[in-house]
Amino acid sequence: MASPVASAALKARIRRPSMLKQLCRPEDMLRHFPNGSYIGWSGFTGVGYPKKLPTFLADHVEKNGLQGKLKYSLFVGASSGAETENRWASLDMIERRSPHQVGKAIAKGINEGRINFFDKHLSMFPVDLLYGYYTKDRTDGKKLDVVVVEATDILEDGSIVPGASVGATPELIQAADKIIIEVNTSLPSFEGLHDITMTELPPRRKPYLIMGVEDRIGTTSIPLDPEKVVGVIESDYQDQTSPNTPPDASSAAIAHHLIEYFEHEVKHGRMPKSLLPIQSGIGNIANAVIGGLSESNFWNLKVWTEVIQDTFLDLFDSGRLEFATATSIRFSPEGFKRFYDNWESYYDKLLLRSQQVSNSPEIIRRLGVIGMNTPVEVDIYAHANSTCVMGSRMLNGLGGSADFLRSAKYSIMHTPSTRPSKTDPHGVSCIVPMCTHIDQTEHDLDVIVTENGLADVRGLAPRERARVIIDKCAHEVYKPILKHYFEKAEYECLKKGWGHEPHLLFNSFDMHKALVEEGSMQKVKSW
Amino acid sequence: MASPVASAALKARIRRPSMLKQLCRPEDMLRHFPNGSYIGWSGFTGVGYPKKLPTFLADHVEKNGLQGKLKYSLFVGASSGAETENRWASLDMIERRSPHQVGKAIAKGINEGRINFFDKHLSMFPVDLLYGYYTKDRTDGKKLDVVVVEATDILEDGSIVPGASVGATPELIQAADKIIIEVNTSLPSFEGLHDITMTELPPRRKPYLIMGVEDRIGTTSIPLDPEKVVGVIESDYQDQTSPNTPPDASSAAIAHHLIEYFEHEVKHGRMPKSLLPIQSGIGNIANAVIGGLSESNFWNLKVWTEVIQDTFLDLFDSGRLEFATATSIRFSPEGFKRFYDNWESYYDKLLLRSQQVSNSPEIIRRLGVIGMNTPVEVDIYAHANSTCVMGSRMLNGLGGSADFLRSAKYSIMHTPSTRPSKTDPHGVSCIVPMCTHIDQTEHDLDVIVTENGLADVRGLAPRERARVIIDKCAHEVYKPILKHYFEKAEYECLKKGWGHEPHLLFNSFDMHKALVEEGSMQKVKSW
Repeated sequence: MASPVASAALKARIRRPSMLKQLCRPEDMLRHFPNGSYIGWSGFTGVGYPKKLPTFLADHVEKNGLQGKLKYSLFVGASSGAETENRWASLDMIERRSPHQVGKAIAKGINEGRINFFDKHLSMFPVDLLYGYYTKDRTDGKKLDVVVVEATDILEDGSIVPGASVGATPELIQAADKIIIEVNTSLPSFEGLHDITMTELPPRRKPYLIMGVEDRIGTTSIPLDPEKVVGVIESDYQDQTSPNTPPDASSAAIAHHLIEYFEHEVKHGRMPKSLLPIQSGIGNIANAVIGGLSESNFWNLKVWTEVIQDTFLDLFDSGRLEFATATSIRFSPEGFKRFYDNWESYYDKLLLRSQQVSNSPEIIRRLGVIGMNTPVEVDIYAHANSTCVMGSRMLNGLGGSADFLRSAKYSIMHTPSTRPSKTDPHGVSCIVPMCTHIDQTEHDLDVIVTENGLADVRGLAPRERARVIIDKCAHEVYKPILKHYFEKAEYECLKKGWGHEPHLLFNSFDMHKALVEEGSMQKVKSW
Repeated sequence: MASPVASAALKARIRRPSMLKQLCRPEDMLRHFPNGSYIGWSGFTGVGYPKKLPTFLADHVEKNGLQGKLKYSLFVGASSGAETENRWASLDMIERRSPHQVGKAIAKGINEGRINFFDKHLSMFPVDLLYGYYTKDRTDGKKLDVVVVEATDILEDGSIVPGASVGATPELIQAADKIIIEVNTSLPSFEGLHDITMTELPPRRKPYLIMGVEDRIGTTSIPLDPEKVVGVIESDYQDQTSPNTPPDASSAAIAHHLIEYFEHEVKHGRMPKSLLPIQSGIGNIANAVIGGLSESNFWNLKVWTEVIQDTFLDLFDSGRLEFATATSIRFSPEGFKRFYDNWESYYDKLLLRSQQVSNSPEIIRRLGVIGMNTPVEVDIYAHANSTCVMGSRMLNGLGGSADFLRSAKYSIMHTPSTRPSKTDPHGVSCIVPMCTHIDQTEHDLDVIVTENGLADVRGLAPRERARVIIDKCAHEVYKPILKHYFEKAEYECLKKGWGHEPHLLFNSFDMHKALVEEGSMQKVKSW
């Protein structure tokens, strides 16, 4: 079969003639994907991932009944698109996955024991990969067999311009034995929007010389070894993102508490008037907080975060946001349209970096970032669970939550005080006696906020913390239950002389037990 | 009462005449310590703390029956000496304490609810203090009322040379309203042994430009505002340190496993021949590991750690250690004698930094430190408890464990597989189904090692991790118990489709229950 003919659009994107000669079809690449391969993809939070080749491979498995016969170890900076990794999971094509994922089929595969998944701090994943930690049992000394990356351009020197995310792509390319590039002509060229740094290993690592969110320390494209490139594919599939989650009354109340808190901190001289660089997660509370800032009295704001969403466009448009940097821009389809239509007005105020840089504890601590995340549950001593429901069922993975909360100047967890169970609109309290899984420790969190109020636990001893968290954050129906737990635990533990952080250890999960056995944490028996 | 007369020794140490004029007796300083004051002391791991004034204040309380009537909020970089903070605790002089402590009376006060103690990452404590986080409820806007620091010298510019530790002294001085200096003439001058950096707050923070353990980025003394100095006291009390804990058979076996592991990593190209900078904690296992390195085939070693102990002198003397840096040198009395007697041979190979630098995640990650610590317990999924026995009883505090383990290239927990209970020499398994308190998460640890063996959990999913930890690390008597827990949990959770990290949530602390109720974890009923 002859090589495909390059479209005019593609020719405009590939400035290195030798790479144009490597143009091929997805089916030509099949031979690089034997069963058991270690594969890397570009992509982060469902943007900038390769689409055409993974879709072809899924079609190939489906058409030929190869489910379970072509299985891969798959490494992507964070989540990829549902139509790729989630479809791969449903076709039993994933043997191992790290460090994060989103999708029903992949979560099912993980929680039914078919996919070996491990989650790792997103800032550490790329360098652990380069250390060879995840491939230490390979006998051939290779790291990744083949890495598929999406690009909007290939430059004269062979380097590539990523799309809407950088993620772990620099390190994936460094770890790759073979590289396949999907040049996406359905996206505009993103040239100039990135600040790319490659990774050296100790003892040759250097400081990240970033002192402000807008500082550039790298290049605008990712260098690679052209001899490793085995194919170039034209792609015209868009990132499949979903619409934004709108704020509700609860998230609006949380945003209100937080903005009041920021005002309080500015007033007491602990924060500059223009605040400090903001990190905000994904979801309706995050959207409400950023939305709330668009209508606040704060100006000259800056953002240092992992992923930029639609609400940041509102914050730009309100004139309050000066600059934002992240490792991905994950807009809704409408958000992307708005972004592309107004490219000129956003272009100079945005910068995408690798996840090792966007999530770097070094920089987060230096800049004094305000870190905000949503947990599964928080306990009365300010530990938080970000990953495993009932201590066991994996949701999406740790992500960057601990990268930010561990090193931020303000480490904030925001959550509704309850969530519904099947039978009770307040069946699940998000404030519990003891978290069933701990990803963020009491040593990491400064502030817990729910729609009921805000608990500022800085400088408080555990027993003080418990009182303020129960009082300010718990839902009314759980306040007496939690208070009773704490008071009984305090009495019992002080009596025994082990009352620093009082627990009724053998009953600490009784609320969870009531949820499992009776459908609501409210049904917990007396402590 | 006339001012005391300066000894010749003291005159040689105080090069700024105006400070010599401030020479006073401890009793002259009493007026600076009203009840309720916020106090800072220099000191770290029981060295470099002020001795004369705290001892005088304790005597004053004891003689005048003022127990509970002179109470203070006390901030020291880490632990101070037993004859100071522990005696203060026994005299009910401590209202609040952070971020670490050592001593029976102070632990008792904390666990009986009389002392409000909170532990914080040692790298973060000094800057949180400067942020005003721990004094946010003061209405007078002050941070620390009075800070007492030990120095070996006061230089012409008024700056001070600390003794055997730097700890949080720079930031304590920055936070001080008044400063009292104890010049210790019983110690040699430590001038030149320190690399001092002061702290600026965001948005004005800068990178730590340290690329190797021997790099200097600061000054050799701590600058201070002479107008804040309210008194200078001559002290001749030595640091009260205890003898070294000798290694036993179990710790020797752990050291053996670790050195074999380092050889394995070097062989596979994941570590240079001279290893990477070593961090080692306190205790007999740490001593065995450093002792083991003194007889190993590793040369040109470097140390980046929190505290340097006697065994590092052996490592220097073996010719294997090139350079060591920490925030304190905590030798035994014999160790200090050996150090002072051979000052010239160690002086150029040692550097003491502030705890914010020695424990800086930024630098630990950049240098690729090998971090090693001893926990209370580790669970089958590689979470670790470093602080609270039975989830509640505080030992000493988090210390720098998470600073190092969270950012190290190799994050290693070493522990005996069991400890004795009152009635059973193996009554406590240090490998448990679920930790009763979590300070280090599964996302932070790479290696667990006991006298039985070494579990390398890098890149493993939780169910894989559990198998290797039980198999390699658990004691023979607990292997079948833990295996049974895991297999039953796996079966139950996979069946329910939440088997990512299987737990029998409502029985996860049954081994702890058996210990409390029947004196040994071995007595656990079938799961």
